[in-house]
Amino acid sequence: MDQRLSLITIGVNDLAAVRAFYEEKFEWTPVAANKDIVFFLMNGFLLGFFGKEDLAKDANVTDLAHGATPFTLAYNVASESEVDSLVASLESRGVRIVKRPEATFFGGYNAYVADVEENLWEIACNPFVELDHAGNVVTHKDISTLE
Amino acid sequence: MDQRLSLITIGVNDLAAVRAFYEEKFEWTPVAANKDIVFFLMNGFLLGFFGKEDLAKDANVTDLAHGATPFTLAYNVASESEVDSLVASLESRGVRIVKRPEATFFGGYNAYVADVEENLWEIACNPFVELDHAGNVVTHKDISTLE
Repeated sequence: MDQRLSLITIGVNDLAAVRAFYEEKFEWTPVAANKDIVFFLMNGFLLGFFGKEDLAKDANVTDLAHGATPFTLAYNVASESEVDSLVASLESRGVRIVKRPEATFFGGYNAYVADVEENLWEIACNPFVELDHAGNVVTHKDISTLE
Repeated sequence: MDQRLSLITIGVNDLAAVRAFYEEKFEWTPVAANKDIVFFLMNGFLLGFFGKEDLAKDANVTDLAHGATPFTLAYNVASESEVDSLVASLESRGVRIVKRPEATFFGGYNAYVADVEENLWEIACNPFVELDHAGNVVTHKDISTLE
């Protein structure tokens, strides 16, 4: 497992208000956004904001909204088979699997594992997130028309 | 304010156990660590782990351990005057200042601001964190001998 990550996604209550904050106060521009999620392309990774309930559902946890972890970290790889093999490797080392690898509703494929204090790592193959040779995120495809 | 960040720091309960997890399960190597904090150099930024109480104290919040935000995001700049001017600029836009710029115990200089949902951003000049021309973190100086 390379020493890198692809996304930090923070669960929020009011996505529109949060988006407006970063656009207006920090003067940042989303690289991809729709009514459910907003991504800012940072230095080699994405900073995402997502409804807390949606994030909890994606991570297969009951209640991220009131839990200890209102954010997730993501490690993206290039293929579904890499997700499977990495998750299997981590499980063989005793890492707790929160959500086994499966197809996502948007066409990706992901799993979630937890560290010893329940910080969540998504292990994902995501067709919308483009990685360069080194594994840095270089862009996110347009999602504004996705439901 | 450039669209980048320098550190993600997660507040934890048992730093030794968390460090062991990332070293043994993910096979990562800290770039800098001591008994109080561990940093992993990621793709252009640092992933840090710090005791929840210490992180709350640094951020000037009462109780990060049981609060909504067990992590902070950091935006590092090259000088104390840049910290001052950036914080002043954000304040003029109505951003809430959580901790006004001040010297830190380790020789740095920092402030904290909050987004609309109390996600904390540290605005910092940190002599231990080396930035390249683009603002990416390239290394963290040795802190193993710091108390």
